[in-house]
Amino acid sequence: MMNELQQMDQLFDRLFPLFRSITGEGVRQTLHILQEYIPLEIEEIPSGTTVFDWTIPKEWVIREAWIKDSSGREIINITNSNLHVVNYSEPIDRIVSLDELKQHLFTIPHLPDAIPYVISYYKERWGFCMSQQQLDALVDDQYHVYIDSEKMDGVLNYAQAVLPGKSKREVLITSYICHPSMANNELSGPIVAAFLYQRLKKWEQREFTYRFVFHPETIGSIAYLAKYGEHLKENLYSGMVLTCLGGKDKSLSYKMSRKKQAPLNALVEYMVKYGKSDMGMRSFSPLNGSDERQYCSPGFNLPMGQFSRMVYGQYPGYHNSLDTKEEMTIEALLQSVDELEEILQLQELNGFYYNLKPFGEPQLSKYDLYPDLNAPTIRGKSSNTLIDNRQHLNQVLMLLNYADGIHSLTDIAAKMNYPLKDYKMSIDRLKEAGLLDGPFRDQQGEIG
Amino acid sequence: MMNELQQMDQLFDRLFPLFRSITGEGVRQTLHILQEYIPLEIEEIPSGTTVFDWTIPKEWVIREAWIKDSSGREIINITNSNLHVVNYSEPIDRIVSLDELKQHLFTIPHLPDAIPYVISYYKERWGFCMSQQQLDALVDDQYHVYIDSEKMDGVLNYAQAVLPGKSKREVLITSYICHPSMANNELSGPIVAAFLYQRLKKWEQREFTYRFVFHPETIGSIAYLAKYGEHLKENLYSGMVLTCLGGKDKSLSYKMSRKKQAPLNALVEYMVKYGKSDMGMRSFSPLNGSDERQYCSPGFNLPMGQFSRMVYGQYPGYHNSLDTKEEMTIEALLQSVDELEEILQLQELNGFYYNLKPFGEPQLSKYDLYPDLNAPTIRGKSSNTLIDNRQHLNQVLMLLNYADGIHSLTDIAAKMNYPLKDYKMSIDRLKEAGLLDGPFRDQQGEIG
Amino acid sequence: MMNELQQMDQLFDRLFPLFRSITGEGVRQTLHILQEYIPLEIEEIPSGTTVFDWTIPKEWVIREAWIKDSSGREIINITNSNLHVVNYSEPIDRIVSLDELKQHLFTIPHLPDAIPYVISYYKERWGFCMSQQQLDALVDDQYHVYIDSEKMDGVLNYAQAVLPGKSKREVLITSYICHPSMANNELSGPIVAAFLYQRLKKWEQREFTYRFVFHPETIGSIAYLAKYGEHLKENLYSGMVLTCLGGKDKSLSYKMSRKKQAPLNALVEYMVKYGKSDMGMRSFSPLNGSDERQYCSPGFNLPMGQFSRMVYGQYPGYHNSLDTKEEMTIEALLQSVDELEEILQLQELNGFYYNLKPFGEPQLSKYDLYPDLNAPTIRGKSSNTLIDNRQHLNQVLMLLNYADGIHSLTDIAAKMNYPLKDYKMSIDRLKEAGLLDGPFRDQQGEIG
Repeated sequence: MMNELQQMDQLFDRLFPLFRSITGEGVRQTLHILQEYIPLEIEEIPSGTTVFDWTIPKEWVIREAWIKDSSGREIINITNSNLHVVNYSEPIDRIVSLDELKQHLFTIPHLPDAIPYVISYYKERWGFCMSQQQLDALVDDQYHVYIDSEKMDGVLNYAQAVLPGKSKREVLITSYICHPSMANNELSGPIVAAFLYQRLKKWEQREFTYRFVFHPETIGSIAYLAKYGEHLKENLYSGMVLTCLGGKDKSLSYKMSRKKQAPLNALVEYMVKYGKSDMGMRSFSPLNGSDERQYCSPGFNLPMGQFSRMVYGQYPGYHNSLDTKEEMTIEALLQSVDELEEILQLQELNGFYYNLKPFGEPQLSKYDLYPDLNAPTIRGKSSNTLIDNRQHLNQVLMLLNYADGIHSLTDIAAKMNYPLKDYKMSIDRLKEAGLLDGPFRDQQGEIG
Repeated sequence: MMNELQQMDQLFDRLFPLFRSITGEGVRQTLHILQEYIPLEIEEIPSGTTVFDWTIPKEWVIREAWIKDSSGREIINITNSNLHVVNYSEPIDRIVSLDELKQHLFTIPHLPDAIPYVISYYKERWGFCMSQQQLDALVDDQYHVYIDSEKMDGVLNYAQAVLPGKSKREVLITSYICHPSMANNELSGPIVAAFLYQRLKKWEQREFTYRFVFHPETIGSIAYLAKYGEHLKENLYSGMVLTCLGGKDKSLSYKMSRKKQAPLNALVEYMVKYGKSDMGMRSFSPLNGSDERQYCSPGFNLPMGQFSRMVYGQYPGYHNSLDTKEEMTIEALLQSVDELEEILQLQELNGFYYNLKPFGEPQLSKYDLYPDLNAPTIRGKSSNTLIDNRQHLNQVLMLLNYADGIHSLTDIAAKMNYPLKDYKMSIDRLKEAGLLDGPFRDQQGEIG
Repeated sequence: MMNELQQMDQLFDRLFPLFRSITGEGVRQTLHILQEYIPLEIEEIPSGTTVFDWTIPKEWVIREAWIKDSSGREIINITNSNLHVVNYSEPIDRIVSLDELKQHLFTIPHLPDAIPYVISYYKERWGFCMSQQQLDALVDDQYHVYIDSEKMDGVLNYAQAVLPGKSKREVLITSYICHPSMANNELSGPIVAAFLYQRLKKWEQREFTYRFVFHPETIGSIAYLAKYGEHLKENLYSGMVLTCLGGKDKSLSYKMSRKKQAPLNALVEYMVKYGKSDMGMRSFSPLNGSDERQYCSPGFNLPMGQFSRMVYGQYPGYHNSLDTKEEMTIEALLQSVDELEEILQLQELNGFYYNLKPFGEPQLSKYDLYPDLNAPTIRGKSSNTLIDNRQHLNQVLMLLNYADGIHSLTDIAAKMNYPLKDYKMSIDRLKEAGLLDGPFRDQQGEIG
C-alpha cells in the first residue's frame, strides 16, 4: 500500500496532462479523478447565466492546434504541450507570412526555453505560445496555422464536499482547477486540499464544519458566490484559499484576510511572532493573488486568507512551462498538508474561554494543580508533579486569570512565549477539573 | 493687464501703510480695499456688546503721536512708522524726564534696528516704541511726549463672502486684519485669502460652499463666533486659519486641528507622508498661534487647522518693523495660493466612495478597465491601453475593493505610494462606468 | 517625643518576633499592636466556612518545636527562630535516623547561612527548616524530633479602618499580616500602611473615602472578598496592594492593574514618563505577586495595582532568615510613605475637568491670568506677575482648552513636560475665577 507521499505523487501524474480551462472536459476529468480522494458533489451552471457583473462563458473545446512551415514540417503542436495554444483561442486555418504570424505568437524573451501560458477568455483572438528559441529559429516563410476549436453552449463546473463538525459554523478550504499543465500554480492547491480532507476526516472530533470547494479561478469563485455567498456570510467562521503550495525550501506564507478580525489573521500572527519563526505573512491586497480577491470583495468581506509557499509571480516558472513537478516537489505539498493541518487544529483550540470559578483563584492544590508545599528545595518526594513543571503552572494561572470571554487564547498565550499547542494539556486539565469552559468563538466585550 | 503676482504686489502696497488696530478706520479702509478683490459683506457689532466672556472695546482713534527733546527736535513720530505708539495708548501731553520716559519706552535690545509692535488693548497705558539705537542715543533731558488719541463708542467690524457649492456643507477660510504695518504677520493672510477666493470662483464646480471671513484677531473671531458659531457647528465640514504665509524658501506648514477627525488632518498627513515631502505639520496647541485658538476652543471644537509658512515667533521680524515685504516676498504668497488651492481640490476629491458592484470584482474588461489578454509580452497591438498603465489598473482594483464607505480615499491611497491627485482619473472612469459612487463625507462604520 | 522614623522603628521591633501564620494568636497580636496606630476593626470568620472555592482552615497552634541529638544536645529550637518549623506542621514526637530526618529538613544550599521559610497549609506534613551549614554539621545519629502543635477550630482574622472623604467612592490600601519573622516581605507593608493612614488623617480634605485592610495573604483576601467583594465592585475607584516596600537604594515600583483603565495605571505611567524618572513599572501578571492576584481575578477585576520596592523573589533574603531590618531599612519605609502619599495626592487631583466658559478663550486678563501688555521687554513694572511665569500661563491655556470632560489631567499634562503637581496652583486659580470645575472621575465620551 502506498504512503501519503506516493499517493500524492500518483495523483499529480494523473492530473498533470489534462487540458484544463475555465470550462469543459478538462475541468470535469479533473474533478472526477479528485472524487477518488474526496467525495465531491459536482455542480454546473449553464453558459449565458448572469453571475453578478459577469456572464458564464461558452465552453471552449480544443481538438487540434499546430503550425507547419511551407515544407509541411511541424513547428509546434499542442500534442507536445497544451500551453502551445492561447487558451480560449478562436479557430483558424490559414497560410500566413512570418510577419503576420509573429503578431499571434507569445514568448518570454528572458526565459528562452519557456513556453508561456496565455489566455484570452473574454476577447476573441487566435494565437500560439512557444519558446523564444523556437521563435528565433523561424525563417522567412509561409506558415500554415491551424486551430480546431469551438465555443459552444455548455456549463461551468465546480464541486464541493462538506465534512460535518459539532458546530454549524464553517471553515472553507478552496482551490482552483482551471490551468492546463502547470504544477505549482495549478495542481499544488487541489492536491493539498484533497489530502487535507483525508486528514480532517480522521480527527476524533471536529468543532467546525469543513467545506472543501474546487472551482475555476475568478469566474468560478464568482459563480460559486452567486449561489453560496449568502450561506457563507451567515455561517463562515474562517477560510483559506490554497494556491502555489509547492517549492523546495520555501516557507509557508499567509496572505492576511481583508477582514481584520478574521480568526486566521490573529492565529497566524501569533504563530509567526511566538512559535513558528519560518512562516511568513503578507498583507491583504486586491492587486494580485487568487480567489481571495472575490471572497474578500467588499460585498462579502469574508474572513478568508490565503496560503502559499512558492508565491505566484515570484518564481521563474510562474505561468509557463517551467512550472514542473521537479520545481514544485511533492515533498513540499506534504509539508503544506502537515502545516495546514496543525493550523486548523490550533484554530479549533483558539477562541474565548471562561473561568468557571472567577472569584479569586480556585484552590488549585485541591485539583492537584498547584504545589502543596512552598519550599526552596525538596529533598523528599513531592506528592505533586506540578512543582517540576513551572510551565504548566504558569499556563494554568494565566488561563484562569484571563479566561474572561474577552481575551482569546492567542491574547493569553502572547503574554508568555510558549507555543500555542502547549496550552492543550493545561486547557484539558482545567476543563476536567470543572474550572474552565470553552472555547467560544465570539468575544464578549472589549479588553479594558 | 497685470498678472496675479503684480496684482498681489499692488494690493500689498495699498494695504501696508494703513493704521490698523482691532477697531476703527484702519480696519474699515482695509476691508473696503479688499472688497475690490472679493465681494465682502461688512458687519459691525457695537462697543460694549458682550460676546461670551468678553466685551467689545471702544474704538481707538489715533491722530498724532510724537516725542520731542527740550530743543524741540523730534525724536520719533508715528508719521514715520505706525509702530511708534503703543496700540490703544491713552492720550498724553506732558514734559517728562528721561528716567520717567524710559518707563514708557519699548525696544528690542537684541535687534537694535527694530521698532517693536506693542499693544495694550484692555489695560489703560501710554507708551512709545522705538529702536534700541534710538533709545541709546537719548541724553539726559526733558522730553515732550504727545499722544492725541481717543477711545469712543463705535463698532468692531468683520466681513465675509460666501461662494456657494453643490452642498450646504461649508469650508471656512479665515484671516485677520488688525495689525498695523507688518507684512508677513498681517497682510500675507488676507492677500492669500482674497486671491484664493478668485481661484475658487473659477472652478467648474464646487462640492462645498466656501466661506471667507476677515476679522480682527482674538476679539474678532470671538465676536464672529458669538453670531455664527452655531451655524458653523451645524454646517462646517472643514476650515483653515491663514497666517504668516510669506517667507522665501519656507515650506508650507499645517497646524493640525484640535479635532482629530478634522478632514484636513488626515489629508495633510497623507500628503506629507506620501506626496509632498516638503510640507510640514505641527501639533495643535492652544499656547500660541492665531484664531484657531478660538475656533478650536472646547465649546466649538471646529474641524479647523491653520496654515503658515514663515511661522509667527520663528523669524526675526515677528511683531516688529523688520516684518517687511522684502522678507515676506509676494512670490511666497503666490506659492501659498497655489498650494492651498491644490489642497482644497484634493479635499473635494477625498471622502468615502462606494463600489456599486461590490460582490466579487466587476468584469472590468467589459468597461475597457482590464487587460483582455493575459500574456507576458505583447508583440501585436493590444486593444487595451490599460496593459501599459499598471498604475491605473492598481488604482482601479484598490478603489473597487476598498470603496466600502469605511475607508476614505486617503486610507486607500496610503496602501500604495501614488500621489492622491493621480486617483482623479481612475475615480472619474469608474464613475463613468457606473461602478463607483462618491465621494461622501461621512464614514459608515469602522474599519475591522 | 519620637519622630516618624523612630516610631516606625519601634513598631517594627514590637512586631518582628511574633509567630504569625495565616490564622491564630500571632495574627491577633499583630492586629492589636497595629490598633495603636490605626483604629482597626477586627473581624473573624470561623474555620470550616466556605469562601468561594476555598475553606477556612483550622487555627494552627504551635507551642514547642526542636530537634535534639542522641546526647540530648539541641540542634535547633523555634525559640531561636520561628522559621525553624514548617508553618502549619503536624505534631511529632519521635526518634528518627539521620536519613529519615533529612526527608523532613529544608535548607537553601546556595545560601548556607539562611533558614528558609516553608509552609504547608493545606497538606498534612511535619518538617523543620535550618541553614545548610547546620545540615552539613549533622552526623549519623538518632535524633529526637519534637513538635507540639495543634490544629483546632477557630477563626481567620482580618481588620480594616475607613477614613471618610467627600465622596463615597473608595481607595483601598491593603497589606498582609501572615508571615513570621521577616522584615521586607512581611512587616514593610503593614507599617507603611499604618503610617500612610496617619498622613491621610491629617489632610485638610479628602475627595475619596480611604479603606485600609489587613489580612493574611491569599486565603485572607479571598475571605475578605467573599464578604466585601460586591461592596468594592460598586464603590472602588482605585486601590493598591502594599508589599516588600523596603530596600536601601531601591526605587518604588508599580505593578499595573489587570484592569487597563485603573486610575493608577495612567497616573503612574504619566509620572514615570514625565515626572519621576526613578519609579519603575511592571506589567500585571497572575504568575506571582501578592493579593492583587485575588483582587484582579476576572470575577472582580478591581482597579488595583501593587507597590513594591525590593520586589519579592528578587533579593537574596526573600522567604528566609536573611530578610532582616538591616537589609530592609526603616528609612526606605519612610520614603515609601512619602512617595505613596504624593501619589495619593495626585490621584485626588487627577480626573476630568470642565471649562465653564468653553466658547472661545475667556478674557483672562480680567482675572489677572494673562499679561495685559504684549511687549518684547518690560522696562516698567508690570501690573501682572504672570508675564514672568510662562509655565503658569501655559498650564492655564492648556487646561482651558482641554478641560472638556474627555481629556484627563494626565492627558493634558502629557502635552507638556511639567510635573503633574505643578498644575495644582493653576487649577486652584482657575477654580477661584469660576472658569474651571472638577475633577470628575468619569470620562465623558472619547477623544476624537
